[in-house]
Amino acid sequence: MLTGSLKDHWPARRLPDIAQLDAGATGWGFFLCTRKELRSGRQGTPHIHVVLQDKSGTIAGRLLEDVDRFKDEFEAGEFVRAQGRADRHNQRVELVLESIRRVNPDQDRAAGFREADYVRASLRPVDEMWQELRGLIDGISDDHVRRVLDAIVTKYEERLRVWPAAVTVHHDYRSGLLEHLLQVADVSLRLADAYGADKSYVAAGAILHDIGKVEELDYDLATSYSLEGNLLGHITIGVRMVHEAAAGLGDVPRGVTARLAHLILSHHGSRDLGSPVEPMTVEAFILSAADDLDATIHQVRRHLAESSGDAPFTPYHARLGRVLLKPSGR
Amino acid sequence: MLTGSLKDHWPARRLPDIAQLDAGATGWGFFLCTRKELRSGRQGTPHIHVVLQDKSGTIAGRLLEDVDRFKDEFEAGEFVRAQGRADRHNQRVELVLESIRRVNPDQDRAAGFREADYVRASLRPVDEMWQELRGLIDGISDDHVRRVLDAIVTKYEERLRVWPAAVTVHHDYRSGLLEHLLQVADVSLRLADAYGADKSYVAAGAILHDIGKVEELDYDLATSYSLEGNLLGHITIGVRMVHEAAAGLGDVPRGVTARLAHLILSHHGSRDLGSPVEPMTVEAFILSAADDLDATIHQVRRHLAESSGDAPFTPYHARLGRVLLKPSGR
Amino acid sequence: MLTGSLKDHWPARRLPDIAQLDAGATGWGFFLCTRKELRSGRQGTPHIHVVLQDKSGTIAGRLLEDVDRFKDEFEAGEFVRAQGRADRHNQRVELVLESIRRVNPDQDRAAGFREADYVRASLRPVDEMWQELRGLIDGISDDHVRRVLDAIVTKYEERLRVWPAAVTVHHDYRSGLLEHLLQVADVSLRLADAYGADKSYVAAGAILHDIGKVEELDYDLATSYSLEGNLLGHITIGVRMVHEAAAGLGDVPRGVTARLAHLILSHHGSRDLGSPVEPMTVEAFILSAADDLDATIHQVRRHLAESSGDAPFTPYHARLGRVLLKPSGR
Amino acid sequence: MLTGSLKDHWPARRLPDIAQLDAGATGWGFFLCTRKELRSGRQGTPHIHVVLQDKSGTIAGRLLEDVDRFKDEFEAGEFVRAQGRADRHNQRVELVLESIRRVNPDQDRAAGFREADYVRASLRPVDEMWQELRGLIDGISDDHVRRVLDAIVTKYEERLRVWPAAVTVHHDYRSGLLEHLLQVADVSLRLADAYGADKSYVAAGAILHDIGKVEELDYDLATSYSLEGNLLGHITIGVRMVHEAAAGLGDVPRGVTARLAHLILSHHGSRDLGSPVEPMTVEAFILSAADDLDATIHQVRRHLAESSGDAPFTPYHARLGRVLLKPSGR
Amino acid sequence: MLTGSLKDHWPARRLPDIAQLDAGATGWGFFLCTRKELRSGRQGTPHIHVVLQDKSGTIAGRLLEDVDRFKDEFEAGEFVRAQGRADRHNQRVELVLESIRRVNPDQDRAAGFREADYVRASLRPVDEMWQELRGLIDGISDDHVRRVLDAIVTKYEERLRVWPAAVTVHHDYRSGLLEHLLQVADVSLRLADAYGADKSYVAAGAILHDIGKVEELDYDLATSYSLEGNLLGHITIGVRMVHEAAAGLGDVPRGVTARLAHLILSHHGSRDLGSPVEPMTVEAFILSAADDLDATIHQVRRHLAESSGDAPFTPYHARLGRVLLKPSGR
Amino acid sequence: MLTGSLKDHWPARRLPDIAQLDAGATGWGFFLCTRKELRSGRQGTPHIHVVLQDKSGTIAGRLLEDVDRFKDEFEAGEFVRAQGRADRHNQRVELVLESIRRVNPDQDRAAGFREADYVRASLRPVDEMWQELRGLIDGISDDHVRRVLDAIVTKYEERLRVWPAAVTVHHDYRSGLLEHLLQVADVSLRLADAYGADKSYVAAGAILHDIGKVEELDYDLATSYSLEGNLLGHITIGVRMVHEAAAGLGDVPRGVTARLAHLILSHHGSRDLGSPVEPMTVEAFILSAADDLDATIHQVRRHLAESSGDAPFTPYHARLGRVLLKPSGR
Repeated sequence: MLTGSLKDHWPARRLPDIAQLDAGATGWGFFLCTRKELRSGRQGTPHIHVVLQDKSGTIAGRLLEDVDRFKDEFEAGEFVRAQGRADRHNQRVELVLESIRRVNPDQDRAAGFREADYVRASLRPVDEMWQELRGLIDGISDDHVRRVLDAIVTKYEERLRVWPAAVTVHHDYRSGLLEHLLQVADVSLRLADAYGADKSYVAAGAILHDIGKVEELDYDLATSYSLEGNLLGHITIGVRMVHEAAAGLGDVPRGVTARLAHLILSHHGSRDLGSPVEPMTVEAFILSAADDLDATIHQVRRHLAESSGDAPFTPYHARLGRVLLKPSGR
Repeated sequence: MLTGSLKDHWPARRLPDIAQLDAGATGWGFFLCTRKELRSGRQGTPHIHVVLQDKSGTIAGRLLEDVDRFKDEFEAGEFVRAQGRADRHNQRVELVLESIRRVNPDQDRAAGFREADYVRASLRPVDEMWQELRGLIDGISDDHVRRVLDAIVTKYEERLRVWPAAVTVHHDYRSGLLEHLLQVADVSLRLADAYGADKSYVAAGAILHDIGKVEELDYDLATSYSLEGNLLGHITIGVRMVHEAAAGLGDVPRGVTARLAHLILSHHGSRDLGSPVEPMTVEAFILSAADDLDATIHQVRRHLAESSGDAPFTPYHARLGRVLLKPSGR
Repeated sequence: MLTGSLKDHWPARRLPDIAQLDAGATGWGFFLCTRKELRSGRQGTPHIHVVLQDKSGTIAGRLLEDVDRFKDEFEAGEFVRAQGRADRHNQRVELVLESIRRVNPDQDRAAGFREADYVRASLRPVDEMWQELRGLIDGISDDHVRRVLDAIVTKYEERLRVWPAAVTVHHDYRSGLLEHLLQVADVSLRLADAYGADKSYVAAGAILHDIGKVEELDYDLATSYSLEGNLLGHITIGVRMVHEAAAGLGDVPRGVTARLAHLILSHHGSRDLGSPVEPMTVEAFILSAADDLDATIHQVRRHLAESSGDAPFTPYHARLGRVLLKPSGR
Repeated sequence: MLTGSLKDHWPARRLPDIAQLDAGATGWGFFLCTRKELRSGRQGTPHIHVVLQDKSGTIAGRLLEDVDRFKDEFEAGEFVRAQGRADRHNQRVELVLESIRRVNPDQDRAAGFREADYVRASLRPVDEMWQELRGLIDGISDDHVRRVLDAIVTKYEERLRVWPAAVTVHHDYRSGLLEHLLQVADVSLRLADAYGADKSYVAAGAILHDIGKVEELDYDLATSYSLEGNLLGHITIGVRMVHEAAAGLGDVPRGVTARLAHLILSHHGSRDLGSPVEPMTVEAFILSAADDLDATIHQVRRHLAESSGDAPFTPYHARLGRVLLKPSGR
Repeated sequence: MLTGSLKDHWPARRLPDIAQLDAGATGWGFFLCTRKELRSGRQGTPHIHVVLQDKSGTIAGRLLEDVDRFKDEFEAGEFVRAQGRADRHNQRVELVLESIRRVNPDQDRAAGFREADYVRASLRPVDEMWQELRGLIDGISDDHVRRVLDAIVTKYEERLRVWPAAVTVHHDYRSGLLEHLLQVADVSLRLADAYGADKSYVAAGAILHDIGKVEELDYDLATSYSLEGNLLGHITIGVRMVHEAAAGLGDVPRGVTARLAHLILSHHGSRDLGSPVEPMTVEAFILSAADDLDATIHQVRRHLAESSGDAPFTPYHARLGRVLLKPSGR
Repeated sequence: MLTGSLKDHWPARRLPDIAQLDAGATGWGFFLCTRKELRSGRQGTPHIHVVLQDKSGTIAGRLLEDVDRFKDEFEAGEFVRAQGRADRHNQRVELVLESIRRVNPDQDRAAGFREADYVRASLRPVDEMWQELRGLIDGISDDHVRRVLDAIVTKYEERLRVWPAAVTVHHDYRSGLLEHLLQVADVSLRLADAYGADKSYVAAGAILHDIGKVEELDYDLATSYSLEGNLLGHITIGVRMVHEAAAGLGDVPRGVTARLAHLILSHHGSRDLGSPVEPMTVEAFILSAADDLDATIHQVRRHLAESSGDAPFTPYHARLGRVLLKPSGR
């Protein structure tokens, strides 16, 4: 139980970013609260369990005292001001909270509150990425392909600018989808160059392959699967968008529509990975390889970044099924 | 080489149906020619290889003499009058042809030529099946579901009446698709009854699950895959039809559309069998089980029917990976 | 630690059924105790951990005080009277016990104790199910098949009436085996009807397919695997029963015995699911499909029933490997 | 076509054993005819196709002339006297037959006909193997195990002495089953010695593991699957024999019967290889490893023996999925 | 049988390249003979079967007459002058040969014989490729890595210049290995650029990944597996070369050697594809993806090139398990 | 929290070996400390978590009081003297520590401290095993094979004597590698005897198959993977040792080196188990079977030994995927 003397040690210092938080640090900070639960311990004592987030990462927190006083002061999905001490628990750093309340924007902005600081987001500026996307589309030489793409991207611009690419695993943060689409486009076009593939279709496939995610996922600071997301999946949703765009334009040849749909459908590479048809064109093989590689490298890089210490290898990565050699570990 | 004396033994007798043709039979018949190739043997002698069909089955044929005289007398895809002798070759009965020419309908009808006799087709009358399909749809209690179904079935009626369900494997003949949809509907509704499932969706799923085959396959007496068929597959095409029908009706709730699309998408049961999403409702589990069972039983029944002789077991069935016990083989 | 003041809040009220028990409820109830362990916590304090059961479900419980006084007052496998408070712990409701003792039937019956209320059991009355089973057997037209079935079912009647179908997974409660056999028979016969299969064998296969479970499992309110259960499995045990019954009758043709044994052996559908031979008859294919569907639907229904809350989808089901759409979730 | 001059070159010389037969050899020999088919070639010429066998191997043969004269002179399953020339066809040596007729034992014995010479059989004398088997059984120290084994082996002695172990793959010749059981027993007992396992059960498992093959297979010079063989498989048949033997003896403890049955059931090592339960005892692990190794080594040795030529590696072995290094190929 | 009149129709015209050869063409040409077999047909008539090759492809040939006259006039592995007629047999074009003899270089050069014309080889000039390889190595910034590479490439230069990359499947022609290494290097470096990976290791991995093939394969116009090739495989051989080179240089840090060996070992991507360890560095993931993509695209391109006709899709490609859409087939 | 009165109950008694330690025992002992962590509980109270080891097993321990006093008195990897009480926690026995400090050899030897007592090691004396290994090598009749072996074993003697065979799973203790090599040699030679295989290569393969583990693993009382261990694996390292030894000897034929390397490379039996090539000789098949069986039996025996209680079956073994029958459980 927290003793009174402990509280006296908590100054009104500002806590560092979550990624920099070490056991022993005390102070206060602004966060996005993404989970809030009222729990009772083995001896029946209730406490509040929260998950807090800033753009550098997430941290669990527990409020053990004065539960009744704070429990209505905030909800999950709100920005909060929380005060407490960082503590190591089960080998992870957690926050033992002294107080927590929702942010009062007017008042707290003076203390440095800026919403964007507490939302995990792509490191690249959205407008820059959007320019790059528009440039890619404008550069597509096949008229039909470019017009279909333009129609879809314009229709879903609002979501495309902010959507994450996944609930977890890779690019699972604000604008992560856009970042991933551009990265896959970059890699795919390099490969198209190497193999003399049709760049119109390669660029289109890269931009469209995961576009169904803007309806597969619901995103409002937190990310979850939508009804269509679960029942249909982003591949089928993306194909529907192509069909709708082509129908709207009226004069797109069936073969163009079919090839665009094929790129989306086959981009997981094989049926057991969820592609109902498998790549049948050089462009589809290239897109599938680029998407697979990009998702893998993203996981590898994140795991390397999260593996501190000076051992030459990272801890075991369960999804990849192996340890990784750190770049410094030669 | 065929000797002159052999020809003298060929009377102008009418050959029996292909299924009844034994080695040694001689005579003439009407057939649909589904393949025609000019081949040359090891010693350079050219001959014409054909595949002939009537509604009881298919048979290979070879014309070894007078190739030049007959080679322009017919093409693949035409009905023909062929004369020759049934012979056993590599354990299969084949026709050694003496003559072959395209049918002259006006003249040959007098000799009993009726197109329908040479096209493999469902044993059930099409109109009867169509009535049953309409009855099924009319009996659907959920208004939205029934209207979506009605729109699709009405739009594709022409093809639905005659399309096969596959290039090979099962229900691969005229109106085989309609026969299969009704059989799956029958079985699914029995299962829905047993488990108290939602019959509107079960019936709709059964009717829609393979409906994309009317565009996946090209059928004009012969069956092959279309461009969309190869690049998209019937599952994605079927979902597109649902989306188009719902858009056309204007007032179908998203949840209804999504559930119908889910039934189509998940009906292969698992991703490695080509379903990009897997069953998530009791109705989808029932549909997937009914479709799988119907395709299997169809193959089992056909293999049993094609296995003559009095051995208790059939020959090995490569796709099923086993021999089968004949019903009489107890 | 429970404080004295807390006890004062516990009235002698009767607790609701386990399925209705919410955190905060206090009072007493009768239960079947299916597990009892003496544990010591991190700080060395011993407590008693129990699992209690009534026919609506199971709940964990902990007795933290007066351990010495209560620890010999009951054993696992006995009916108990327990008093305490429902508490939420790790997101599950548990009972924090104040007192627990074995039931004294004479005295407690007056307070409403009825053994049958604390044993999880099929919702269908056993006698009604038994009648249905006898009716099924009497309706089998093949004399040999009916007599073999009659011999087996008569011999194992005592166990067949009460045995569960599994330790966990599906139909894992009193008379669950009988319920499952009848359900599979119902579904199988509907399918036999649809496909014109031999109903004698289909009914017999449905009744016999899991009958080896009466020796595979030991059941005495709790369920576990027997020696033969582990070393042989219910498929082999079931085949042994058919061979013994046929030997006892003396005049059953070998082909009948072999076909019955084949239905049992092949009902898991494939070798990697534990069937040493795979279905070779229409009847065996039907039985295998019906059994697979019934086990799946049972799990789906249970998971739907156990998933509270108003989200459209259930939590992830690990064995099925997916979330499920709630019927209301359209 | 065979020219008259060729026949003049065929002396009445005795052909060597099939394994020694090279293209160009001419003469006559005695054989077992295991297949006979009347075929007609592309040009309609009928010929007789046969498979002939002596204990050194099998060879295909064709009789191209005088078909009518010889076609009723013999049947498949009979011993024959055949005359002709060895010829290379499609990279295999075949016999081009001049004449063929069934053996007249009285008359042909004088010319050296001995039935045993034309039946592929174990190289070990049956009586010697039988002595070894009896010795193994007599050496079993556990009374119950020995008596069960003695009962089964005595009951099936007639078949056990001559049965093959398989239709193809390994030990697929007269007394091949007995040879395989003894070899597996030898290997298993060496392993039991190395690991201090229970030799009573290891020896019993080795002798019983494939014993169901005496009913799984029909063997009368030719080998095929029986009704029970297909529908139940040798594993289930073998377990039935153990249960019958134990029932006949009356006093065998259930645990002994279950362990013996377990050894049979689990000897394929895993479910996807057809074992409904997997090894759960040191003895069962040893038996499964010994059986697997023996079957593999048998195939390796046979493939090495059949691979002539001086290349260091054998041709590709489809079942093993690789080439093998010849012992001389270092 | 070839008639005399046919021969009269064969002028001494020069045949076109194999890839351009249509049924009906007659004349003579120079070829590399890669296979020669003396076969006898069903009727005992011997003929000579050959496989002939020029740099545009391969073709089968049969010499049916005057076998004795020509059979010692050439051997497999020699360049030959062959005369005959192109004929369609089993849907493939073959050569029915009138005469065949080994090339007499002195005499035949006058008629246009140039060895290089009959050896399938990379379309890129070897010296140009070698320059590119040397340039790649010189551009490697890490001294240790560059020196190891230089040592290996220098040592095996002679073979590296001419070796094929495989017996079949992809890059299976003269200098195909060098072409493949450079192509993988090109692709890998583009990916390294996209992901900021270490280009020294990526280039080294690309050059070394298949270098073991210079000892895995024996190549002397024909390609086959060597003793080490079968027993060790090119991955292990390549690692040995790295270890030997590092030992020879004396001062290469263990970590550098280990990382280079890791790139070779892991380049098949997973254990079931033959990599004993799986990629653990960004560089190894990139190399594995580039190699896989290059081998796939090579097969796709070749299959597209070999699929004539104007159908939108190619025939089924067994190794890829699908049909492919022709670039023109939109 | 530990009360003062509890401490009074702890006499200065010597604790029994870890394997004999039951809940309730109190006293002190010497151990090897293999892990040490400072943790804080839910309420922020810090404690020290340790893992202690003697040659009979390992045990977890917690020091809850006087953390500051003891936390610098010892480190992981040191021998310690610890005092406390055995307690059951989460169904495992743990030590609740009262005090812990590093061993002072001079002083503690008087109290019976012997380093060897606290290191898990093979039960067989190292010198005896080494004699056996030398005997095996001396008995190899093939000169080249024996000399290669002698060179390797001599070079790595120091490590070979003490290395474990694995981090976990099997033979994961001091000299476990040597014990495993000898056991596999014993089993392999028995099998070689049964099948008349080449004993020189079988013995050599058994000794060499895992020899790469002396560099794959780092071992210094604790075991972990080295840089080469992770990046290359013991199979590739072992092959490198063979190549180096052969190069050092100078006159070893390539075929001998290749066959030895092949035995190492293929000993996992299949590619998905990490063997880049699969067995191609009788000797390689035998070695692979022996190694697989030895590793399995080792796990089976250990699981049986660790399963106390009188139930006939062990708890579920996750890696083997089953329960095991205890030898007494008949």
